Amino acid sequence: MAITVVGSVAYDSIETPAGRRDRCLGGAATYFSLAASFFTDVRVIAVVGEDFGRRQEAVFLNRNIDIQGIERAPGKSFFWEGSYLDNLNEAKTHNTELNVFASFEPKIPEAYRDSEFLFLANIDPILQRRVRDEMPGVQLVAGDTMNYWINDHRPALLEVLTGLDILLINDTETRVLGGDKNLVKAARSVMDLGPRMLVVKHGEYGATFFDKGNSDSHRTEYFRAPALPLEEVIDPTGAGDSFAGGFFGYLASQPALTPAVFRRAMFYGGVMGSYACERFGTERLQQLSRKEIDDRFNVFRELTHLD
Amino acid sequence: MAITVVGSVAYDSIETPAGRRDRCLGGAATYFSLAASFFTDVRVIAVVGEDFGRRQEAVFLNRNIDIQGIERAPGKSFFWEGSYLDNLNEAKTHNTELNVFASFEPKIPEAYRDSEFLFLANIDPILQRRVRDEMPGVQLVAGDTMNYWINDHRPALLEVLTGLDILLINDTETRVLGGDKNLVKAARSVMDLGPRMLVVKHGEYGATFFDKGNSDSHRTEYFRAPALPLEEVIDPTGAGDSFAGGFFGYLASQPALTPAVFRRAMFYGGVMGSYACERFGTERLQQLSRKEIDDRFNVFRELTHLD
Repeated sequence: MAITVVGSVAYDSIETPAGRRDRCLGGAATYFSLAASFFTDVRVIAVVGEDFGRRQEAVFLNRNIDIQGIERAPGKSFFWEGSYLDNLNEAKTHNTELNVFASFEPKIPEAYRDSEFLFLANIDPILQRRVRDEMPGVQLVAGDTMNYWINDHRPALLEVLTGLDILLINDTETRVLGGDKNLVKAARSVMDLGPRMLVVKHGEYGATFFDKGNSDSHRTEYFRAPALPLEEVIDPTGAGDSFAGGFFGYLASQPALTPAVFRRAMFYGGVMGSYACERFGTERLQQLSRKEIDDRFNVFRELTHLD
Repeated sequence: MAITVVGSVAYDSIETPAGRRDRCLGGAATYFSLAASFFTDVRVIAVVGEDFGRRQEAVFLNRNIDIQGIERAPGKSFFWEGSYLDNLNEAKTHNTELNVFASFEPKIPEAYRDSEFLFLANIDPILQRRVRDEMPGVQLVAGDTMNYWINDHRPALLEVLTGLDILLINDTETRVLGGDKNLVKAARSVMDLGPRMLVVKHGEYGATFFDKGNSDSHRTEYFRAPALPLEEVIDPTGAGDSFAGGFFGYLASQPALTPAVFRRAMFYGGVMGSYACERFGTERLQQLSRKEIDDRFNVFRELTHLD
């Protein structure tokens, strides 16, 4: 199955205890598509500026990612500058320049319209909704969001949620969106807003999968995937988007979406998130092999399995 | 194998979003011994005041816990008052009265001296050390501590660590004691201080087991056990001590300490920690059955296993 993803393709300047990178390729759609590309065909919808060149294009093309939906606009690409000097689990944003993203109007290439899977990366929910509406034929829709949209653009976000099968957000976002300090209760409230499945990312502690299941029984199924205890986190930027790419990419690669497939997808998400942290920006994802991914999958299994 | 545990037996006044309990039975040695008693014989060393009566004794005796090492002293028992109104993951201490604990001199009953396992619950490291030294014949020693001892009584604590096989502490304590923000590096530094195994408790995210293993290879083995996503945390007091009791109790019940046994012990720790949170104080542990424990063990397996 092919995945279409809409989201940001950007430049990031990042400082972590391990060092600094200026204007490296970033953006949620970039991390997502690189991670997912190890599992299935990926097609990107985004907008970039005149500063986006052949070298950046090559990062996508080397992974066979379809970028005809990456529009060039006059001006500069989205730019984010942040640091993780005090806390590797939380970025401190120093600067955000929307640039060409400020007037982004997603356009869906004709060749993308047969995509079976759709991922709405973290952007303005009005744009997420528009893309969702223009692709009524997709079989499975997943998406991400962040506290800014939850707090300040709630009505638009609620409309997006009704069109999602799976939402992937972190602990804090789950608690804020669900309006409950208890994660399980918050998760249930979030699923009542639309998505029948929820992946809550816990950073270095892994992630939890909630499946609303049969609404008659009001029974929620859980599954917990670990994160690898990493001895060296070089740069956590994009770990969550890489998790989403591994998770959704693996789902799209499977002939049927059984409970066992969702469990393995959670592990593949963790694998891709852990690799993303090993070098700055997308450097590690650019140089990864499928064999390394499967090897680490087995490490994750060893990490949590009893026998 | 029999476990001797030294630590606090106390009264707690606790307030959580679910309500309030005044002067209920608490203390690290209480939670530990109740949890461990489902797996093996447990013997307690502690001191209580004149306010400790038949009803409190019965809580231990009903679980066949040996309390001849609980000394009665003139005065009042250790008392702690705390709340979790803002954050169920972290207690806010309102009052601590050491009372009879201020002059506690642990005395080891003759009948305890053949114990094969020793657990040093979180008390003054000088007392932990004294008990450790008086029981040279034990096969496996585990212990707990807290930031207060790590920060303000480090030399005494370091002496304890050299006599421990397994240390059980939380994330923050590991980072402070190991002097590194990275959990894996901090864990390795902690193990260099003595204990060859370390259990890091992550609260609602489970726990990680580190085994220094063969020091030649400088290879550290990890294992991650989940925590159950709990829909209702009534009172988290004692969850960590109950984890330790389940973990160490299960180890003591097994004929050999294989890697597989340590993995299962981590799961049993999580099971006991999760039950402890379901009611105030020790209420749930008092009314638990071994069947419920094994049922939840299977829920934990389901929660993390792929197949």
